[in-house]
Amino acid sequence: MLFKELNQGKCKTYLIACESSGQAALVDPLKDNTDRYLAMLAYHRLTLTALFDTHTHADHRSACAELRALTDAKVYMHELAPQPCVDVHVNDGDQVKLGDITMQILHTPGHTPDSIAIVLPDRVLTGDVLMIGGTGRSDFAGGDAGQEYDSITQKLFALPDDTCVFPGHDYRGNTVSSIGEEKKSNPRIANKTRDEFIQIMDNLGLPLPEKIQEVLQINQTEIDDDALSFPSVPELNSIRQVQSAQVKKSLNKKTAPMLLDVRTAEEFDGKLGHIPGSQLIPLKELANRAAELEQYKEKGIVVVCRSGVRSTTAAAILTGLGFDKVSNLQGGMLAWNEYMEAKQ
Amino acid sequence: MLFKELNQGKCKTYLIACESSGQAALVDPLKDNTDRYLAMLAYHRLTLTALFDTHTHADHRSACAELRALTDAKVYMHELAPQPCVDVHVNDGDQVKLGDITMQILHTPGHTPDSIAIVLPDRVLTGDVLMIGGTGRSDFAGGDAGQEYDSITQKLFALPDDTCVFPGHDYRGNTVSSIGEEKKSNPRIANKTRDEFIQIMDNLGLPLPEKIQEVLQINQTEIDDDALSFPSVPELNSIRQVQSAQVKKSLNKKTAPMLLDVRTAEEFDGKLGHIPGSQLIPLKELANRAAELEQYKEKGIVVVCRSGVRSTTAAAILTGLGFDKVSNLQGGMLAWNEYMEAKQ
Repeated sequence: MLFKELNQGKCKTYLIACESSGQAALVDPLKDNTDRYLAMLAYHRLTLTALFDTHTHADHRSACAELRALTDAKVYMHELAPQPCVDVHVNDGDQVKLGDITMQILHTPGHTPDSIAIVLPDRVLTGDVLMIGGTGRSDFAGGDAGQEYDSITQKLFALPDDTCVFPGHDYRGNTVSSIGEEKKSNPRIANKTRDEFIQIMDNLGLPLPEKIQEVLQINQTEIDDDALSFPSVPELNSIRQVQSAQVKKSLNKKTAPMLLDVRTAEEFDGKLGHIPGSQLIPLKELANRAAELEQYKEKGIVVVCRSGVRSTTAAAILTGLGFDKVSNLQGGMLAWNEYMEAKQ
Repeated sequence: MLFKELNQGKCKTYLIACESSGQAALVDPLKDNTDRYLAMLAYHRLTLTALFDTHTHADHRSACAELRALTDAKVYMHELAPQPCVDVHVNDGDQVKLGDITMQILHTPGHTPDSIAIVLPDRVLTGDVLMIGGTGRSDFAGGDAGQEYDSITQKLFALPDDTCVFPGHDYRGNTVSSIGEEKKSNPRIANKTRDEFIQIMDNLGLPLPEKIQEVLQINQTEIDDDALSFPSVPELNSIRQVQSAQVKKSLNKKTAPMLLDVRTAEEFDGKLGHIPGSQLIPLKELANRAAELEQYKEKGIVVVCRSGVRSTTAAAILTGLGFDKVSNLQGGMLAWNEYMEAKQ
């Protein structure tokens, strides 16, 4: 196995390659370094077959969509990842083959709902959940300190103590640690109760990453349109979230809201299906086609997407355009399908 | 032989490659251009086996450590180079093989103590010592105009007149000159006595390169840590330098100072050894572990490294933290070992 950190910086991208088959994977590639990755793959005579984002990043633009377009590699992300161009949605326990190498997926939510760790025979790529002497913040983008504690203590700390830990970030020049070392001396989580950890994480007082709203929403939507100005965090937070049960109930009434699906056409007709009666206006076209929605202004609109993230952006855009009866289907089609299955 | 300047700019990086074996070397690579070098190597189907810095650079970040990590090539620098991740320390007269090509090393101090020139059959890479119509400044980072005069007149001008000269920098768009041409018309050194040259070099009145202290100290230490702020040039210059003889003598006394070695653990147990009784705190960990040194505050501390450069940085960091009895072992373990051998 060829294994290298490619950015040689604070934000880390890993190359994993099977030398006998020449197949390679990149984990958490940065858009700014796309040329380097292509050069490294060419230098080592490798074929890129898999791209992973361990979660939806808020601190940098992902290179996954770009590298997928340039190399035809497939993008792998967790089931809950909101972005549209994921080829393979993975879940806890899934295995991904890369030539002779088997990568095992752990679902490790807490930093974000869609966080995964990638386990190789002797090492684990922990993304932004467990870092060397640290843990990923859990105070925005769906983070949850309690979930993070459970992910680290029940899934990552269940790996053998000598498993090497390769994190998504490090700001002190560290490159590798081990599960045993983090269990013993990680100042945030070693020997801490769940409540103590939540207390620590809720009081870090960190500023939001620079440009978070821009980066996060571009990574979530894969829309890069000069004419589209993404809503601010307060605008996103002010959107009314509705549950699948409420939406289902309202559909039988005379006052039923209009259901607006903002995914891509491929997704609308894809695996997750769509809610009968819903209308498709992809997020990318929303600002230009908002006039089509004028007729529903009084009736009200519920916006729908895959996981409820892009639709919150869409709802905030509509609110900014003067639509005041707009709400969001929380959890999107993933939550809707789960609710409908449970009902049967 | 494939020979190319890769930056096509004022600061020059040379690719030397043996076409029959596919082995390549890079001389003075820039961190900003790492991706280009990888792409060039891949384009020409070459394997990078050797990386050279002709000296510790103050004007740009070296790419040697990064390219070493990405390609497993070995880093070659002069014996006096302060940085920790040099694989092969070279000395005057050494030969380095690159497939069919033999590179001969000349030690050419003057711009810095660790400057080398690389001689190929028909050409010489002169680094920043001899440039086209110029010479490297000798007014900081251990430079010495007299040494520079000797390096140029006794070593470089001893090469055949038709030897091509490829310098580390050129600000006038020149790419190549010859030893004969520089002997005849280099305005700083042609037909000048040693004293005249020193007089010229001591009166250039050049400003210090931008960001010198940051770049120089990162290149010297290979530490890139957000939490570490490097000392300023006046802070470095204010550190008391002590000779090996003084330190040796003081060790036998009741008032013996504490000996603090700030190299990496590998170096501490490596070829140069360490002074018996010295304690290791790598420079990278110094700021965090300074509390361990409180007990030696009154007694005094002598800081030690390979060549006395990183230890001066460490001494200045400790001085900034309130340690006022701190001094530096001038010349580091290289000087110490030389002194001890001479004593026997």
